[in-house]
Amino acid sequence: MRRAIYPGSFDPITNGHLDIIERSSRMFDEVIVALLLNLDKQPMFTIEERVEMIRAVAPASNVRVDTFKGLLVHYAVAQEARFVVRGIRAISDYEYELQMALMNRRLEPGVETVFLMAGEAYSYISSRLIKEVFKLGGSIDGLVPKLIEERMHAKISNG
Amino acid sequence: MRRAIYPGSFDPITNGHLDIIERSSRMFDEVIVALLLNLDKQPMFTIEERVEMIRAVAPASNVRVDTFKGLLVHYAVAQEARFVVRGIRAISDYEYELQMALMNRRLEPGVETVFLMAGEAYSYISSRLIKEVFKLGGSIDGLVPKLIEERMHAKISNG
Amino acid sequence: MRRAIYPGSFDPITNGHLDIIERSSRMFDEVIVALLLNLDKQPMFTIEERVEMIRAVAPASNVRVDTFKGLLVHYAVAQEARFVVRGIRAISDYEYELQMALMNRRLEPGVETVFLMAGEAYSYISSRLIKEVFKLGGSIDGLVPKLIEERMHAKISNG
Amino acid sequence: MRRAIYPGSFDPITNGHLDIIERSSRMFDEVIVALLLNLDKQPMFTIEERVEMIRAVAPASNVRVDTFKGLLVHYAVAQEARFVVRGIRAISDYEYELQMALMNRRLEPGVETVFLMAGEAYSYISSRLIKEVFKLGGSIDGLVPKLIEERMHAKISNG
Amino acid sequence: MRRAIYPGSFDPITNGHLDIIERSSRMFDEVIVALLLNLDKQPMFTIEERVEMIRAVAPASNVRVDTFKGLLVHYAVAQEARFVVRGIRAISDYEYELQMALMNRRLEPGVETVFLMAGEAYSYISSRLIKEVFKLGGSIDGLVPKLIEERMHAKISNG
Amino acid sequence: MRRAIYPGSFDPITNGHLDIIERSSRMFDEVIVALLLNLDKQPMFTIEERVEMIRAVAPASNVRVDTFKGLLVHYAVAQEARFVVRGIRAISDYEYELQMALMNRRLEPGVETVFLMAGEAYSYISSRLIKEVFKLGGSIDGLVPKLIEERMHAKISNG
Repeated sequence: MRRAIYPGSFDPITNGHLDIIERSSRMFDEVIVALLLNLDKQPMFTIEERVEMIRAVAPASNVRVDTFKGLLVHYAVAQEARFVVRGIRAISDYEYELQMALMNRRLEPGVETVFLMAGEAYSYISSRLIKEVFKLGGSIDGLVPKLIEERMHAKISNG
Repeated sequence: MRRAIYPGSFDPITNGHLDIIERSSRMFDEVIVALLLNLDKQPMFTIEERVEMIRAVAPASNVRVDTFKGLLVHYAVAQEARFVVRGIRAISDYEYELQMALMNRRLEPGVETVFLMAGEAYSYISSRLIKEVFKLGGSIDGLVPKLIEERMHAKISNG
Repeated sequence: MRRAIYPGSFDPITNGHLDIIERSSRMFDEVIVALLLNLDKQPMFTIEERVEMIRAVAPASNVRVDTFKGLLVHYAVAQEARFVVRGIRAISDYEYELQMALMNRRLEPGVETVFLMAGEAYSYISSRLIKEVFKLGGSIDGLVPKLIEERMHAKISNG
Repeated sequence: MRRAIYPGSFDPITNGHLDIIERSSRMFDEVIVALLLNLDKQPMFTIEERVEMIRAVAPASNVRVDTFKGLLVHYAVAQEARFVVRGIRAISDYEYELQMALMNRRLEPGVETVFLMAGEAYSYISSRLIKEVFKLGGSIDGLVPKLIEERMHAKISNG
Repeated sequence: MRRAIYPGSFDPITNGHLDIIERSSRMFDEVIVALLLNLDKQPMFTIEERVEMIRAVAPASNVRVDTFKGLLVHYAVAQEARFVVRGIRAISDYEYELQMALMNRRLEPGVETVFLMAGEAYSYISSRLIKEVFKLGGSIDGLVPKLIEERMHAKISNG
Repeated sequence: MRRAIYPGSFDPITNGHLDIIERSSRMFDEVIVALLLNLDKQPMFTIEERVEMIRAVAPASNVRVDTFKGLLVHYAVAQEARFVVRGIRAISDYEYELQMALMNRRLEPGVETVFLMAGEAYSYISSRLIKEVFKLGGSIDGLVPKLIEERMHAKISNG
């Protein structure tokens, strides 16, 4: 049984995330999309909303959604997951990811960090940039699933 | 008519900015130096002061100063400007600029982002660093026009 | 009259090059696609073939094809061109281009180097990589114009 | 059945390669260490010697050694391998690998490139650098397996 | 007399810092470990605690601990130190350090910035990351001296 | 006695090299400018010419010129030099230098590699680029000392 964790904030989930999830799901027996409970930030969506949204759009049957707090590698061990999946886009991502992967390997050598490169169509999109563009009235068509775009509109209307 | 936007915060305008403005003004029929109205930051100078200061030091007759809010590409379209000028210094600039240029191209394919490289004498100066050095009592002679240096002294004395 | 040089080897011209040529042709009154006569390399196509191929696929009426030897900035001055256009893809491109742009600016301050970023669909294609893939039997459909692909097949059959 | 290709020249195999092979072998059902038949270079060891050396030091039972020529993705498809493993060390590796991964994905979307980061102890070793140091009389103890070091000594004595 | 400044926040001092201090102490007649009095941040340890901790673990007799505020180069001149030592780990460090070194050289050409590369074992550790891991319950054994680890535990228990 | 090696090909010595030599000479008791005897390349000047040229323009009394072959760290140990000085310009330099510094530290922990950043005026000049520009008829005034420029002219006239 090869189980992998795909950690992140997913506020909201993007087409870039979905691409990585789908590709990971072909590589591992099970992929856990794991939302980090990070109390510091001011998210657009609550944890519960984000979990529900990922479940609604997640493409594959061997994908599970969960939340975690504390160290990622501790969570991975508790889940009996020996792999962590990370998508990398730019060089600056890469540096940060390298630092984290080396630290995680030191903390828990049994958990392997696996990198997939973002497709070129997703190389410039991030949840942060999509929210910024959205709030300024730009089109985010094609960057997130239709359902997510609707939720973003609803959130802004209500908020 | 080829019109270009040179967007930024210009808090305050530096000799590096002026170098880019002057070079852009030879390349396009008109260059609009466009201050982003960004309410989040705590600037050194007000928008009005910054507009006035750029007007006082802007080198060329085909340079106009304006302010904008919202998406840059929407502003460009409204101004009938098909070009956005960006100066790049370091690699990290470059990554961010690449991300923004690809997003802007997606949002508005009719607006082209054009990059000019900072001259080597300006490769390490930014408004932020200049303000930091200035506040700690370092000399900023040669990094900003004399007029701007005087305004910075006046601002500190009054503030 | 704003005239720009777009220099290169173009062995052969790719869809990435054509994208830059088309975008440049909207920015300048005239764009000269300038083939560097570089005797050192072993090209796939002769200079004459490359000139003819670019002419056959070049998209705009204000684009001219020429050849040059010696320093690029000397050629630009001789052509009364005040601009050099360069497409940049990766960080490593960027570093080399920065070095060349600073040297060219020193050699001839009147010639400005202007950078356009490669579209994301072209971020990983180069003439060299396309030839490599082609020779190993991989499909290059969509990476070069149909005409160029035919010429590559003819060249391999005859060579 | 998840089968992965780990391609390279392995002239000779290093401890960095072995680290990647061992980690890959825990991730996939089978890993094929695939030597590229590249006639252009002047190797230290023949293909046959390299195959034999990898077999002698390869750590896991689900690792197979093979050779290939032509496009990597064509070889992967022929082997019914849906994954290609690459180790990355420095930023410059990363750029090249990104370019190749995007091209390979275009050529064959069914083959996924998976990246593992070199351990910090292996971040600066490459076959090329090890050969260079070795030829100049430097110690390569700990950089390659003992057996490989002996073969290198034997090769130099005989050659 | 060659005196060097090794500036930083040291909140807390790490094994990576100690490695740089020890190497610097062999290179210069005296090394001043200089804590920047930065009122903005919320440190884990007070300045006094940090000074005392560095003194407790600093490895060499020609190392002195001090604090400073204002511009680093002004402090260096006041201390008659002609050298500033900086450890660099990643590319992103390098860019920032390059910018600061060029600015410092402009402010005070008589003060030379000298770079030492972090050992590979320390390439991914920073005070910030160590504190983050520590607070989430991860082991920081080997990343800081034992004494510092104890102080971190005491601080958390009391705080 | 703190002695440092400044290794290189110096074909020919540039103003960028001289800047590093002068700065190093203030940092160490003695600096040995060490020419690598590299038989593979086709230099512009012979080793003897290069040694003589460096001696003619070297700025400081505590600078000595020498040649070496084999591993740099072995040469450093033989010279009782505990330091190697390297100038870094671009990011790509930095990566290569990092790799070499880590390897050298492994080979000989007692030899420390010290990095100085090229001044911004020298950030884009290299012996290779200067020769290229020179051969194509471009001005290299200010990039090399006058004496070196004369020797380059003499070399071209005679060769």
